[in-house]
Amino acid sequence: MTEPVEPLGHLYAARVSRFDASAIREICKLCTRPEVISMAGGWPHPDTFPADDVLKALTKVLTENPGPVLQYGTTEGLPVLREALADWVRNFDGTPLDPDDIVLTHGSQQGMDLAARTLLNPGDVAVVGLPTYFGGTGAWKSQDAEIVGVRCDDDGLDTDALEQTLVRLQDDGKIAKLVYVIPNFDNPMGATLPLERRMKLLKLASEYDFVIVEDDPYGTLRYEGERIPSIQHFDREHRVVHIHSFSKILCPGFRLAMVSGEPGLIRKMVVTKQYVDCVTNTPAQFVALELLNSGAIDRRIEANRTYYRQQRDLLLQALDRHFPKAVRWNRPRGGFFIFVHLPEWLDGTQLLRECVEQNVAFVAGAPFFCDGSGHNTMRLSFSQIDPDTIDRAVATVASIMKQRIAEQS
Amino acid sequence: MTEPVEPLGHLYAARVSRFDASAIREICKLCTRPEVISMAGGWPHPDTFPADDVLKALTKVLTENPGPVLQYGTTEGLPVLREALADWVRNFDGTPLDPDDIVLTHGSQQGMDLAARTLLNPGDVAVVGLPTYFGGTGAWKSQDAEIVGVRCDDDGLDTDALEQTLVRLQDDGKIAKLVYVIPNFDNPMGATLPLERRMKLLKLASEYDFVIVEDDPYGTLRYEGERIPSIQHFDREHRVVHIHSFSKILCPGFRLAMVSGEPGLIRKMVVTKQYVDCVTNTPAQFVALELLNSGAIDRRIEANRTYYRQQRDLLLQALDRHFPKAVRWNRPRGGFFIFVHLPEWLDGTQLLRECVEQNVAFVAGAPFFCDGSGHNTMRLSFSQIDPDTIDRAVATVASIMKQRIAEQS
Repeated sequence: MTEPVEPLGHLYAARVSRFDASAIREICKLCTRPEVISMAGGWPHPDTFPADDVLKALTKVLTENPGPVLQYGTTEGLPVLREALADWVRNFDGTPLDPDDIVLTHGSQQGMDLAARTLLNPGDVAVVGLPTYFGGTGAWKSQDAEIVGVRCDDDGLDTDALEQTLVRLQDDGKIAKLVYVIPNFDNPMGATLPLERRMKLLKLASEYDFVIVEDDPYGTLRYEGERIPSIQHFDREHRVVHIHSFSKILCPGFRLAMVSGEPGLIRKMVVTKQYVDCVTNTPAQFVALELLNSGAIDRRIEANRTYYRQQRDLLLQALDRHFPKAVRWNRPRGGFFIFVHLPEWLDGTQLLRECVEQNVAFVAGAPFFCDGSGHNTMRLSFSQIDPDTIDRAVATVASIMKQRIAEQS
Repeated sequence: MTEPVEPLGHLYAARVSRFDASAIREICKLCTRPEVISMAGGWPHPDTFPADDVLKALTKVLTENPGPVLQYGTTEGLPVLREALADWVRNFDGTPLDPDDIVLTHGSQQGMDLAARTLLNPGDVAVVGLPTYFGGTGAWKSQDAEIVGVRCDDDGLDTDALEQTLVRLQDDGKIAKLVYVIPNFDNPMGATLPLERRMKLLKLASEYDFVIVEDDPYGTLRYEGERIPSIQHFDREHRVVHIHSFSKILCPGFRLAMVSGEPGLIRKMVVTKQYVDCVTNTPAQFVALELLNSGAIDRRIEANRTYYRQQRDLLLQALDRHFPKAVRWNRPRGGFFIFVHLPEWLDGTQLLRECVEQNVAFVAGAPFFCDGSGHNTMRLSFSQIDPDTIDRAVATVASIMKQRIAEQS
């Protein structure tokens, strides 16, 4: 049935032309060529998947009482899992959640999609970091929101710059409905929002009447320093929609995340989900429940911290050894990513192209900037690097950088 | 965090007020009270879930090579599963599909949501049956489509009435972008669209330039008569988006469906899915692959036919025994549902309320009619009925009907 043309193209919705698959798909394609050493994808390493625990849990629940495990569930998710998660968040973050403050979703991306559909009218403004994860930006864009970028520095979203932007938007008569932030070890910068910026963000949310979408896939993966409570932890006005992913503490294949927030808003997201996919995968929920109750998830978190701390250190050491002085990068305290600033004239996408010819991949920074800037940046992921090849890969990138720099001077 | 009011209500998107959870949620609530004998939910019976096969498959794939089973996959779904499904559809329906004509989704509902987002601009018209499944109607409504109903008879959607509607819409300058149909043993009527209506529908799609969304969750569950090929089977212009659910041939908990159609349109749905939930649950895909390859799914289909045929016959016999002459119902050749027409003056919702007081539940027909009609109809599901209680349940409903009829005359 393959056709070279698009026979139904004239029937597509207008929004289809605004979706751009290239950034994500380029990464995927690069990752699948076996000869490529990749620092591209932000996927967790399969060595960290608790396959034995998962199989044990599935064997238990499918043997004891398979009916409910394989049946539809309620749209908001298993009551007993939402209770266990409320307890878990209380222990981990000190935030008091009720089960009714929680909806289980197919990954963090669905949490963002449901938030977008519940909150955004066409033309509403969604504020995002420059840079930030394009999956978040995409969720707001897909509801025809206007995307406005606010600059980030090594501490993440600059809340002073945000305030200036909010004033300007208000003057322009625009409605800033939500601010999207990844507070811990963010994608792509690896930056962590300090406590005072979290408090400032909440103050601005109250003054300018917006919702904060706090996307926190990496919060449990801290390798050094003191944990900072979530923005939601300090949220007295219920303005935070908080998204916890299970992809980095269990595994991504289950597509499981929890979204928590003001119960009225969560209820609207649940009703929306009835029209989106009805119910979140039930076996995944039963496995998560078993692994929470047995302590396997907490043990996994500890093990992952050790694992990825070593990965981070390996990559940082290789960068120290090889990268030229003309580029600078950060030392993330957690997560998966190191962000590199190249000289102003050096294009990350062009550099990527040359590196891929030498079988090394990373992600150019530009797709993370909604305003078209960031051309001289790149994101390195250490989650899947191999100790045996990482030095060679970094040396290859460094050598191409040095060639370009030598040509320029 | 529970609040009696909705502190963020003023920030909700306008579309939120158009979503109505009541129809679905009323059903769910009725089903969970243990003392209620239910003919309400269209859920498959847990006795039909292949729990042993599922556990065997999971044990195999999680033991042999757990990495890919628990990792992210590609957005369109596992290539090897899409190949196996293309073969399976070819064998089952004779329709030649390529793997690139297929995207795996989180249930049929997500297939409809992706079709809606890919095809519908606000104000486009989506045509649905009077009655039809409200999850379909909801998907189109959630993209701000105008919903137009066309009457159904015992053979499903009346394609002559559809043609008249299309003429009228064209005269009004409206764009009918999509026609939604459940061709086999539909929900709620249990009706099957005859071959000539399928051909007429394709002819109209070509003449009036629309896409047919062919939602087929029950097609494998035929209990008598000759199978009619899918509408997609005859589709020379690639105008059909076909949705196969795994909920009734494997289990609903995995939230797995396949959507097939014109590869350019499928590609747009895949790009949209990247902003919706990125990837479909991977373990579910590996299980489906194992069960397709081992023949377990085909065996399950055969077993389910026998199982649900008996369920249907049980309910039909009870209806014959107890229901008064003033009501009429159909004899479905497959699926889960029997549709009952009450006397014009007898309201299905009111009848339901009285029956629930006597601990018997069904679904009133009205929510399936987008034009507010159908008040004197009801849907009975035989998928989960119990041979020991069904006669008593039907007798209870019949007795209340007879009281109402006696009062009326």
